[in-house]
Amino acid sequence: MNFSSDNAYGAAPEILDALRLANAGAVPSYGDDPLTAALNEKMTRLFEREVAVYPVVTGTAANALALSTLCPQHGAIFCHADAHIATDECGAPEFYTHGAKLVTLEGRDGKLAPEEIAQSLKHFLKGVVHHSQPSVISLTQASEFGTVYTRGEIAGISALAREQGLKLHMDGARFANALAHLGCTPAEATWKAGVDVLSFGATKNGALCAEAVVFFNPEDVRDFEYRRKKAGHLLSKMRFISAQLVSYLEGGRWLQSAACANGLAKRLAQGLGGVPGAEIAYPVEANAIFVHLPNETILRLRAAGARFLDWAPPEEKRTLIRLVLSFMTPDADVQRFLDIARG
Amino acid sequence: MNFSSDNAYGAAPEILDALRLANAGAVPSYGDDPLTAALNEKMTRLFEREVAVYPVVTGTAANALALSTLCPQHGAIFCHADAHIATDECGAPEFYTHGAKLVTLEGRDGKLAPEEIAQSLKHFLKGVVHHSQPSVISLTQASEFGTVYTRGEIAGISALAREQGLKLHMDGARFANALAHLGCTPAEATWKAGVDVLSFGATKNGALCAEAVVFFNPEDVRDFEYRRKKAGHLLSKMRFISAQLVSYLEGGRWLQSAACANGLAKRLAQGLGGVPGAEIAYPVEANAIFVHLPNETILRLRAAGARFLDWAPPEEKRTLIRLVLSFMTPDADVQRFLDIARG
Amino acid sequence: MNFSSDNAYGAAPEILDALRLANAGAVPSYGDDPLTAALNEKMTRLFEREVAVYPVVTGTAANALALSTLCPQHGAIFCHADAHIATDECGAPEFYTHGAKLVTLEGRDGKLAPEEIAQSLKHFLKGVVHHSQPSVISLTQASEFGTVYTRGEIAGISALAREQGLKLHMDGARFANALAHLGCTPAEATWKAGVDVLSFGATKNGALCAEAVVFFNPEDVRDFEYRRKKAGHLLSKMRFISAQLVSYLEGGRWLQSAACANGLAKRLAQGLGGVPGAEIAYPVEANAIFVHLPNETILRLRAAGARFLDWAPPEEKRTLIRLVLSFMTPDADVQRFLDIARG
Amino acid sequence: MNFSSDNAYGAAPEILDALRLANAGAVPSYGDDPLTAALNEKMTRLFEREVAVYPVVTGTAANALALSTLCPQHGAIFCHADAHIATDECGAPEFYTHGAKLVTLEGRDGKLAPEEIAQSLKHFLKGVVHHSQPSVISLTQASEFGTVYTRGEIAGISALAREQGLKLHMDGARFANALAHLGCTPAEATWKAGVDVLSFGATKNGALCAEAVVFFNPEDVRDFEYRRKKAGHLLSKMRFISAQLVSYLEGGRWLQSAACANGLAKRLAQGLGGVPGAEIAYPVEANAIFVHLPNETILRLRAAGARFLDWAPPEEKRTLIRLVLSFMTPDADVQRFLDIARG
Repeated sequence: MNFSSDNAYGAAPEILDALRLANAGAVPSYGDDPLTAALNEKMTRLFEREVAVYPVVTGTAANALALSTLCPQHGAIFCHADAHIATDECGAPEFYTHGAKLVTLEGRDGKLAPEEIAQSLKHFLKGVVHHSQPSVISLTQASEFGTVYTRGEIAGISALAREQGLKLHMDGARFANALAHLGCTPAEATWKAGVDVLSFGATKNGALCAEAVVFFNPEDVRDFEYRRKKAGHLLSKMRFISAQLVSYLEGGRWLQSAACANGLAKRLAQGLGGVPGAEIAYPVEANAIFVHLPNETILRLRAAGARFLDWAPPEEKRTLIRLVLSFMTPDADVQRFLDIARG
Repeated sequence: MNFSSDNAYGAAPEILDALRLANAGAVPSYGDDPLTAALNEKMTRLFEREVAVYPVVTGTAANALALSTLCPQHGAIFCHADAHIATDECGAPEFYTHGAKLVTLEGRDGKLAPEEIAQSLKHFLKGVVHHSQPSVISLTQASEFGTVYTRGEIAGISALAREQGLKLHMDGARFANALAHLGCTPAEATWKAGVDVLSFGATKNGALCAEAVVFFNPEDVRDFEYRRKKAGHLLSKMRFISAQLVSYLEGGRWLQSAACANGLAKRLAQGLGGVPGAEIAYPVEANAIFVHLPNETILRLRAAGARFLDWAPPEEKRTLIRLVLSFMTPDADVQRFLDIARG
Repeated sequence: MNFSSDNAYGAAPEILDALRLANAGAVPSYGDDPLTAALNEKMTRLFEREVAVYPVVTGTAANALALSTLCPQHGAIFCHADAHIATDECGAPEFYTHGAKLVTLEGRDGKLAPEEIAQSLKHFLKGVVHHSQPSVISLTQASEFGTVYTRGEIAGISALAREQGLKLHMDGARFANALAHLGCTPAEATWKAGVDVLSFGATKNGALCAEAVVFFNPEDVRDFEYRRKKAGHLLSKMRFISAQLVSYLEGGRWLQSAACANGLAKRLAQGLGGVPGAEIAYPVEANAIFVHLPNETILRLRAAGARFLDWAPPEEKRTLIRLVLSFMTPDADVQRFLDIARG
Repeated sequence: MNFSSDNAYGAAPEILDALRLANAGAVPSYGDDPLTAALNEKMTRLFEREVAVYPVVTGTAANALALSTLCPQHGAIFCHADAHIATDECGAPEFYTHGAKLVTLEGRDGKLAPEEIAQSLKHFLKGVVHHSQPSVISLTQASEFGTVYTRGEIAGISALAREQGLKLHMDGARFANALAHLGCTPAEATWKAGVDVLSFGATKNGALCAEAVVFFNPEDVRDFEYRRKKAGHLLSKMRFISAQLVSYLEGGRWLQSAACANGLAKRLAQGLGGVPGAEIAYPVEANAIFVHLPNETILRLRAAGARFLDWAPPEEKRTLIRLVLSFMTPDADVQRFLDIARG
């Protein structure tokens, strides 16, 4: 019973198969191979627009490289106080941007709101060299709390971004889970709503190590390819990363996997409704549940082998925990967790 | 009537004289000159302790170089949300530390409180590589709002710093004004209260361009001298910076100047008590006043030639402004400002 | 007939199999998994010494992260003018070290010699802040020209390094090929000869994307783990990188593959002896051949589909080309290449 | 008898006077003052072209900030192996550019030649992400060996720069000495010969601490002002730096001082012609002499109090030393040095 992270599970068998298929013959290295070309085409079709796609192996690399391309060293990046880039990347964005400022804002359910951003922007005077210059807004979709920005919410933020001359970045480490929830097209969830660059995640949802930076505007790419190389993130046998992403997208596998994980989360959340003392903290829209559980329930679950993270220091009687579901989480684990939780 | 900044005024005539005296003969460059040696001795006597002193020409350089020496690139620096390092240095600390994280906290009257820091520290797990590791607390003394940490307040924060293994940095761009208010010794206001490194300001209080990074513990110096050189902050004719600092300290000039500026601020603040609609926002303890004034009063003052900064966007009826006093501010200007303000 | 790079070929089938085996179940992420633990043990046994092993996905990442851990920002790194870190990593070492200086030296057959290093060191005065401080010597083993440092040569350089207080780094992107040539133990080829840190390559010799930074002295690790994370080089599903390395080492697979590639190179080199106008430029000791061929021979080879790189601008009559062999290079390709070359 | 550096002497008395004149009243800080405006106008007239001028306090800052504005992090900067930026700035250019590569070239008399640069450029393939991309050529005028590029030599290098799409930077720490030698106009020595950005030195030739970055093309300024601030190189009381530069230029003071120093160097060099065993190493065109002297002569000179630097490790019988002249070097010192040297 492992609910600690969607990283805990392995890869989709089909993606492993794709690696074997990708292994044949000698091909040009560093991304000049047919599979990487195929990935670009696939992404272009998927997003209904010419896109520039750059595979990397971690979400932190995708985010930090994308942000450093969008944001000058004297820039400022606005994000939620609980965004992964702010709390879980050891300062990677500050490092890659050579010292841009991360401005962290509060916001309901782990989501930024235009009003909060607008309020914060007032403190940064344009053209005043003492102030880091507002350059990028970064959204996390799905958010760190398992909630999902609606298309309207994204559009609201992107309208502000456009008005203020900022770029809009989306950290889509769990983009598939968000999209499965939204039920709209990838285009509608991104550039049609004003997103400029997407960190397109696959690792948490079935790849071994594959993310992609997707630029919706060719002019934003600028020196990204040099940045990726200089950071050691350009893989020589790129075909093996591209193969994962191609297979991930094939036949809608990515959305099926995400829908499966989301469904398990929904089922677990519903079941938790019947657990004495359980209180769900945020709307369950993707594949994560944040729930307050009585401490004795938590002890019982852990004693039975359930793995999950405390999301806040334990309180006297209860603790906020995080439960993350993967499409590889066994159905039976969800049931067993609920059975034990119910006592 | 210039109350816009203590940078608006020039240098103390005695400090200019000191430059002329320093000009004689040929001496070793890059800080191996007698005046720089004299500065070290003077500072050691002043602080009643062997200190390592490094002159630089800006407060931003002093802060950023000091912080980058204390804080690894994977570290976090805790400061007030309105600290100069957070709002007015264009991300210099992030740049010099190669991406350390600035954690900005709220706090009454522009001052950090141990409770807020302790609360924030809980979010940074020790030894967890995803999290920037808490490394430094930076206080601004006097604060950006013209308030002054008491020795007890500093000791409270330094106790937390010691307990958590953090270094304590003090941004003393207006250290003289703070000390003039506190009335204690420089030692009591710094290392005896737990401060590890001080950015010792002189420019705002009578120098042309002279600040000093003062290390109270030799082991903290580490690679500071290389950092200063690599940043282009090691001056060849160092004697001219050291001469300013030596003259600044001579005969207590620095404290007299600061006391003079503080006294002018006190007088102006008292006078504002009689101005209709005036409301002082923070205790006036150093050389700056933050006051809400009716918008028509502000218009009248500016029409008469008074210069000062809005500190927040104007409200409907009134605006928060900042008034900064220098020991060079003419007495008559204070009186005239009050006369006009009273209408 | 692809001789362009050992990156052109894919992965060993056994390593692909290992990925499938690694896929079972849920395990802790970010390197706290059993396979990563197994890798550490395997490496410790292999090197006959407690080592600290950190898997990454590119050689550039391995080199730059290792060097940035060994070398302060004010340091200097000595390497051959043709070293990969100097010519093919787009300044990654300078970026990761925050501006350390790469000092590039000439040296016979792509190898550094102690005399050249000693000569260069004289220009860097110890403790003089204007000078980058000598900190690391980096060797490439096998070298960029397919030659291999003897154990004596390494020991000669490491003696100088010890004497001068420098660390010794080995870029072992083709360490297996070098070791297969030397015929000694991994320990003898590294720490017993004075190497402090090894970039242990596997990608070029059968992995999909797997290198490891191997520290022979625990005190050298310092903040490496934070650096890896901050750079986005800490993989969440680390088991899939560790699995490649474990399988790579299993049963001596790595040395067999390298010996195979070296053998093919030897055979090709011998065959080239019979090609009119061919002149081999460097001793063929690993899996690469640098050979001057008549331009018409080159045209004929390329017309027949052979792929390889020019290593210098074409001269009037002939051109220096590079031929790289992989254990996956078909035997028949070597024969065919020779047949065509002979005309 | 101090010939160790032109930094050893102090400032021109007139420049000290200018500081006192600059001290009157309250003025806007951070460069928005009348003196900084006057400097811009003066420089524009001097260079017969609209220029953008940014005062800083060290040559290292001027060079590193200028280069970081001209050169992307994935760029390469070509300079002489003995250039100050390569040997005496502790890696400042690499730091400020975030890891651009310094390519150091040999060249007769401390000067780069187009052929050497062109040869080196062949190793950097355009658009190949593995290679740092050639971006800037940096000349030192006068060179580190006291020689001066002729206008033709500069034009030859700038022609190559234009052809290859590189920017041309001139490190003019001793620009005045070079110009006094050339006898042409400042415009002819810079932008008319193809220079894009000039580090205009004044400290070595009479200022206390004042250099200026001069951009000849407004589009090259880009984010320079943010870079200067972020580096802590934007002085609050800027008037005191601008005042030095204005006074430096006034009535041709800068060229008179330089001509005086050059003249002393010439006289000393001529006198050395009569010193047994003396051999001058480079043409004496500016204010420095590099001369081989017998070791016993050197001992005698130092015993008599003469200060100067060894420029190479002492040989068996003689040593290469450097003698630098300032306009403040007493005439009598030159004579005395020669008298002692002659024995």
